[in-house]
Amino acid sequence: MENIHLDADFIEQALQSKRAVYTEFDGLRYLQFTSNFKGIRRGTAVIGGVVVVGYPSIGRVLSLQSGLQAQFQQPIWLEEKIDGFNVRIFKIDNTLVALTRGGFLCPFSADRASDFFDTSVFDEEPDLVLCAEVAGPDNPYMDSGPPFIEEDVRLFVFDMARFNQERFLPQQEKLHLLEKYRLPGARVFGRFELQQLPEIKTVLLQLNEEFREGVVFKEDSQRNHRAKYTTANVNILDIQAGAYAMLDYPPEYFKNRILRLVMFMDEQGLAATEDLRQQIGAAYVNGLFEAIEQIHAHHKVVRTFRCRFNQRDSAQNLLKRLQQTSGHVQITLRHLTEENNYWLLEFDRQYPKSSGTLSSLFSGGLMFD
Amino acid sequence: MENIHLDADFIEQALQSKRAVYTEFDGLRYLQFTSNFKGIRRGTAVIGGVVVVGYPSIGRVLSLQSGLQAQFQQPIWLEEKIDGFNVRIFKIDNTLVALTRGGFLCPFSADRASDFFDTSVFDEEPDLVLCAEVAGPDNPYMDSGPPFIEEDVRLFVFDMARFNQERFLPQQEKLHLLEKYRLPGARVFGRFELQQLPEIKTVLLQLNEEFREGVVFKEDSQRNHRAKYTTANVNILDIQAGAYAMLDYPPEYFKNRILRLVMFMDEQGLAATEDLRQQIGAAYVNGLFEAIEQIHAHHKVVRTFRCRFNQRDSAQNLLKRLQQTSGHVQITLRHLTEENNYWLLEFDRQYPKSSGTLSSLFSGGLMFD
Repeated sequence: MENIHLDADFIEQALQSKRAVYTEFDGLRYLQFTSNFKGIRRGTAVIGGVVVVGYPSIGRVLSLQSGLQAQFQQPIWLEEKIDGFNVRIFKIDNTLVALTRGGFLCPFSADRASDFFDTSVFDEEPDLVLCAEVAGPDNPYMDSGPPFIEEDVRLFVFDMARFNQERFLPQQEKLHLLEKYRLPGARVFGRFELQQLPEIKTVLLQLNEEFREGVVFKEDSQRNHRAKYTTANVNILDIQAGAYAMLDYPPEYFKNRILRLVMFMDEQGLAATEDLRQQIGAAYVNGLFEAIEQIHAHHKVVRTFRCRFNQRDSAQNLLKRLQQTSGHVQITLRHLTEENNYWLLEFDRQYPKSSGTLSSLFSGGLMFD
Repeated sequence: MENIHLDADFIEQALQSKRAVYTEFDGLRYLQFTSNFKGIRRGTAVIGGVVVVGYPSIGRVLSLQSGLQAQFQQPIWLEEKIDGFNVRIFKIDNTLVALTRGGFLCPFSADRASDFFDTSVFDEEPDLVLCAEVAGPDNPYMDSGPPFIEEDVRLFVFDMARFNQERFLPQQEKLHLLEKYRLPGARVFGRFELQQLPEIKTVLLQLNEEFREGVVFKEDSQRNHRAKYTTANVNILDIQAGAYAMLDYPPEYFKNRILRLVMFMDEQGLAATEDLRQQIGAAYVNGLFEAIEQIHAHHKVVRTFRCRFNQRDSAQNLLKRLQQTSGHVQITLRHLTEENNYWLLEFDRQYPKSSGTLSSLFSGGLMFD
């Protein structure tokens, strides 16, 4: 495969047009693409002399049957999509690095990686990039985690790439390396012919019952085209998690989730039972009632996050990074204490619009809508 | 009171800066302010030599107790807010004219006005402008009407103004004229001291039980300051009405309604019963299930509107005006037939985003979100 090479001129252009910046954090200095630029994806990093490409957006189908027909020409691999955050993990100059989707360093994932797999894999495969989802209730970014992870986080490798390469490793090679190095992989349901719609639907019905997010389809072909498809019930969890800070969520967040929920049910022939309708209604109102309680008690809407680290420094680095990159969202340390061989970090995120708008409304302010 | 006078220079400036246009429709030519411009409100019309000012936006309080304290210094009138559309009705050169909020002619309201009041009021009071809400299931603009109006529409006068005057008539004078000319007024619950919060809450609880929209507070003072406040249950109706064409609704529509609902319940100490949560969930999903049925059957999402007219011409004028001013929303005539001494118009609105996005998704298209 052809190597990506970004020459000095190209980098200069990207810097000039503010699509890339030099980022320095915790002793590492690298070029971070903050937006797409001439075929280079947002999140791409040039670090220690190599290019680690940004993880691509994967389009979503909302209709399974027509989606499979329209998107794929060859058999597809079905993999579980885990509801967490996306990191790329690799080793540069003997340092384990984790980058978020946007190309920021993730001191949390870098610190914890060795809890989930043997990082000596990078001694054997020095140019390997593991693309993984980190998910669970005790994570520093997401308002919720999948219900099947009861505490802390887990890590699931779902793709692999190599330095200076645009393309992922083929599925078979990835599966081989997962096994060889005993890496924790996202669940693979197998390779399906496009005609096997009933079998694919059965997988999804099962995931739906377990409130698991859904699947990614990966075409077993050179072009390796992908699409994602999610279940109905997970949207209830998303709405519930989002309702608490509703005013700070992107406007389409709730609409899209109701649409996904209804289209899944329509295709699977599921009825909107009274119980389901009740759950949806509860998801909307409960979070907002909680936010209002917070306003009455503290005049602000905050959510407390907690996560654990092996190194005290990693926790402090995470906090520093969040404070640098969270814009109007205020990040405040609550505790950093040693507990069961980990450093347990607790911090608050204060939601600016929820806090501001609700406080203003509870002081009798006018809203023009 | 001082008369508004817009001189030729000012009008020229407004036209130049595209805040006003000359509109010609059905033999009437007038200047329509399409945006606010230097103190002149959007919706203001200069017609037949007089200025009819635009109806002002009324801010909303979401917290009753603090809202009353923060917004008002004097006793307030409580009037029912009806969930319909706002028109200003008056007579120019022997022609009855109705203008919508945006300053468009409303051939529907002009045609039907005489069904709701004796329009000879304008012979006695030639410079009177009636500000009224037209509400009911058979209206040409709104997706729903208040449940207490079972068919057709009704008209409720809630303010009065005079030509070339910025300010509304004082409440007492309005009430006097309503009575004198037997005009149908919005219900007035009385004049309340700001301390009478319990009584005001009782009015609102009653309205909430009847799924009525809420009230407008009007300060009994020279400044005549206003604020509106709405009930919880009406939001369920709004969500239900909007869910059918969810993708075409403004992004904040649903968020704001959930917020109003929860804040009303919080203040009134109402619990989110299982039944209420179920109604909210149903409001979201039922409309969208219907839209999906439409897509399966007709590949588009349309809503059929119907309304009745005294004159055939008025119906045709309404249709023509909607076709001119509805942008991407496609308006299609279904029927115009005589029935019970009325001309019954039925037409379809085709929602472009709902139709386009849902059709694309049902053809297997990708969504990037």
